[in-house]
Amino acid sequence: MTVKHFFKTVKYLIVFGSILTFNASADVLNAEQKKQMALLETTALNSELSYQIVESLTTEVGHRLMGSEGDKKAIKWAVAKMNELGFDKVWTEEVKGTFWQRGDVQAKIISPYPQPISAIALGGSISTKKAGLTANIAHFKTFADLKAAPDNSLNGKIAFISYRMERHIDGKGYGPAVGARVGGASVAAKKGASAIIIRSVGTDNNRTAHTGIMRYEDGIKQIPAASISNPDADMLINQLNRGGDVSFFLKLIAHSDPEVEVISANVIGEITGSEFPNEIISIGAHLDSWDVGTGALDDGLGIGIMLAAAHHITQLPQKPKRTIRVILFAAEEVGLLGAKEYMNLHKDNMNNHIIGAEWDYGTGKIYKMTSGVGEEALPAIKELSKYLHPLGVELSLDNDAKAQSDMSLLSNAGMPSMNFSPDALAYFDYHHTENDTLDKINRDDIKQNTAIYTLFAYFAAQSGIDFRK
Amino acid sequence: MTVKHFFKTVKYLIVFGSILTFNASADVLNAEQKKQMALLETTALNSELSYQIVESLTTEVGHRLMGSEGDKKAIKWAVAKMNELGFDKVWTEEVKGTFWQRGDVQAKIISPYPQPISAIALGGSISTKKAGLTANIAHFKTFADLKAAPDNSLNGKIAFISYRMERHIDGKGYGPAVGARVGGASVAAKKGASAIIIRSVGTDNNRTAHTGIMRYEDGIKQIPAASISNPDADMLINQLNRGGDVSFFLKLIAHSDPEVEVISANVIGEITGSEFPNEIISIGAHLDSWDVGTGALDDGLGIGIMLAAAHHITQLPQKPKRTIRVILFAAEEVGLLGAKEYMNLHKDNMNNHIIGAEWDYGTGKIYKMTSGVGEEALPAIKELSKYLHPLGVELSLDNDAKAQSDMSLLSNAGMPSMNFSPDALAYFDYHHTENDTLDKINRDDIKQNTAIYTLFAYFAAQSGIDFRK
Repeated sequence: MTVKHFFKTVKYLIVFGSILTFNASADVLNAEQKKQMALLETTALNSELSYQIVESLTTEVGHRLMGSEGDKKAIKWAVAKMNELGFDKVWTEEVKGTFWQRGDVQAKIISPYPQPISAIALGGSISTKKAGLTANIAHFKTFADLKAAPDNSLNGKIAFISYRMERHIDGKGYGPAVGARVGGASVAAKKGASAIIIRSVGTDNNRTAHTGIMRYEDGIKQIPAASISNPDADMLINQLNRGGDVSFFLKLIAHSDPEVEVISANVIGEITGSEFPNEIISIGAHLDSWDVGTGALDDGLGIGIMLAAAHHITQLPQKPKRTIRVILFAAEEVGLLGAKEYMNLHKDNMNNHIIGAEWDYGTGKIYKMTSGVGEEALPAIKELSKYLHPLGVELSLDNDAKAQSDMSLLSNAGMPSMNFSPDALAYFDYHHTENDTLDKINRDDIKQNTAIYTLFAYFAAQSGIDFRK
Repeated sequence: MTVKHFFKTVKYLIVFGSILTFNASADVLNAEQKKQMALLETTALNSELSYQIVESLTTEVGHRLMGSEGDKKAIKWAVAKMNELGFDKVWTEEVKGTFWQRGDVQAKIISPYPQPISAIALGGSISTKKAGLTANIAHFKTFADLKAAPDNSLNGKIAFISYRMERHIDGKGYGPAVGARVGGASVAAKKGASAIIIRSVGTDNNRTAHTGIMRYEDGIKQIPAASISNPDADMLINQLNRGGDVSFFLKLIAHSDPEVEVISANVIGEITGSEFPNEIISIGAHLDSWDVGTGALDDGLGIGIMLAAAHHITQLPQKPKRTIRVILFAAEEVGLLGAKEYMNLHKDNMNNHIIGAEWDYGTGKIYKMTSGVGEEALPAIKELSKYLHPLGVELSLDNDAKAQSDMSLLSNAGMPSMNFSPDALAYFDYHHTENDTLDKINRDDIKQNTAIYTLFAYFAAQSGIDFRK
């Protein structure tokens, strides 16, 4: 035991009282349910099912951007997989949107030292004119620096933001970096820029640039937006550091027709509760992915975990008391469209959404759980943590969790939530790139992840606890 | 000290006698020369020069395949850099060859599950027909399995060799893997295949396939040859594992005109010896690179080390007694053309090539040195090792070294050689890919590498030792 771990353990004991006291208090689960928890843990920790589900999705479907052929295939795949895995009810709920189609991108430094640049269009970007555009680079180290540039100071230039995302176990480097990706284009356009390139929002050193959604502000001229890989950003800076002008060529072909509506779907499956079928424990992930890689981590991993967790529970001799609902959301990447539609349809039933949790980041073991529940439910959360602690999960002292990504909309509408924090050190090496492929799934870690969601769902379904605030 | 390290040390002491005995014996270097060795070590370990040279090459030139614009630029760059760094003599020696031009490659699985595939043409491959070709995959786990296939068994098929290179510190996984890349096409053609794809000869999991030279056998039908990235090879296998036919599309545009001669050059620089100008200590690397990435590791790293090593020696108050020659070979990647031409021009002077060493693999610290010298020179090698041991270099008990890559031709012609073995664990993650870029250079390790080549060159130049067998 490391010193750090020792102090963590001491903290744990102080907060929850001694293990003896804890065990002596009235538990939420009875002896039979505890046996089922142990069985589920053993099953999940020894099962390849969640990995096999990701293998199936990445092999048979591949990437699946809202509106694409892959998206349609993924919906069929998910319905078939849920039926095959023994869900009691499986259905889809239509989600409408548009289909942004990536075309080719070509980028290169023209002078002083001509070099090819690995680039990728940001999701939602418009095209350059067909012949592309050539302009000098205006370099900003941060998005804030770009914002501070005077009006018209970028006339006829390509803005370049070179801020590099930091690597952290909780992925907290993403927040400070992603603003330039989402909002950089309109800010640059206001200053007169004819295009924007940003250093990839990613922690790797691969020449596979990172995509991700960007947005144009209403009433501001739309300009093309791309990211370039980290090694290319370094090289561009090296050329800029020599002091003269750097001339850059960008050709970007993308297509989106806001007039043409495309249809996707949330895919939902349930294990119907034996005693309280209208009380819903929801666990989720998103079914869509960016149109690069095979979406193995984002969010194939979440899909594998959720489907396997539910399947393990279907294999118990008795059904859970409450309903366990797996929601695979459509069109998360392009703006939580599936989650928004889910809220449209189910907003009047949020009281029936007893508690929920999503998986939408990370590649490694879960090391922390954080609740977002009513005070009276905290003892139950502490009991749940007792089952998860042997798997390496510490209970956070905070009680302010929103569920991740899609489910944050449900949390915001009052659904009690759990947040499980996985190791995300390597996640942003692959996120939104061609490298998001099956080999990035750690076959041990996914078992731990699955065990935790399985135990959470079963515990919440059996507990009878009202988790509301 | 680890147990392993302890035994290594014991072995060292047994082989070379006790340190006391060793120090008491007559040394090759005198006290003044030892002072210079210490000064060179300190200088090299504290200098950013070798890194700066790689930065300059990768920023201002980029990749530089034999015959390309980059190749021409690299020659000018090298001549200018040697002059700037204080070499006494700088010259070029013409090398003739052909220019193989990579075009686009498109690869995808057509059925059962359509998916795009990241592929790259192998160097020297012919094109497919313009429209590309579609054929079923014939899968072989090893090159030996392909060789064992009956004649005509591959008629109308694309051969796929899925052998995965192993990761080892000394890069020894490359040998068993690279045969399929070099010779696979002609073997597959003999069995009737219309094309061949191989799993990348690389240890990474990036979707940046590895290129490298391939050869057609005389008199055998030439078929297109490409490699696919490791994640794509995994996915193709996953589709094959489902049991049915897998239909694959490959379109590969490459161009080479054997009738058109292109000119490159070896770039050579010398610090002329003060006492024995005709006795040459040669250190080298190759100037060309594949036409992907910026050739930072392969072989920018070697170039940076050699130029910096020579520069540090030019800064001493007195010139070395023997000549130190830095040879930057042309066209290594396409078949050691520069080294062959060097032998053509200098074969009658091999007796003047006192000893030589090249750098052409690895990314990390040097951990081993191996000599290839006459028995009588072994005490001098042992003395050299005394200077390098504090830098983490163990002397191998073997005395059978050939210099690396280009310089192996000089070794084969009788030049005594040293081989310095760097950590190559990560090298084949980047080798011959778009990811071979400046960020892969470890700024600490390159200092150690440079210190070792600097000390070797100076020691050999001052030693007066005849290293011949």
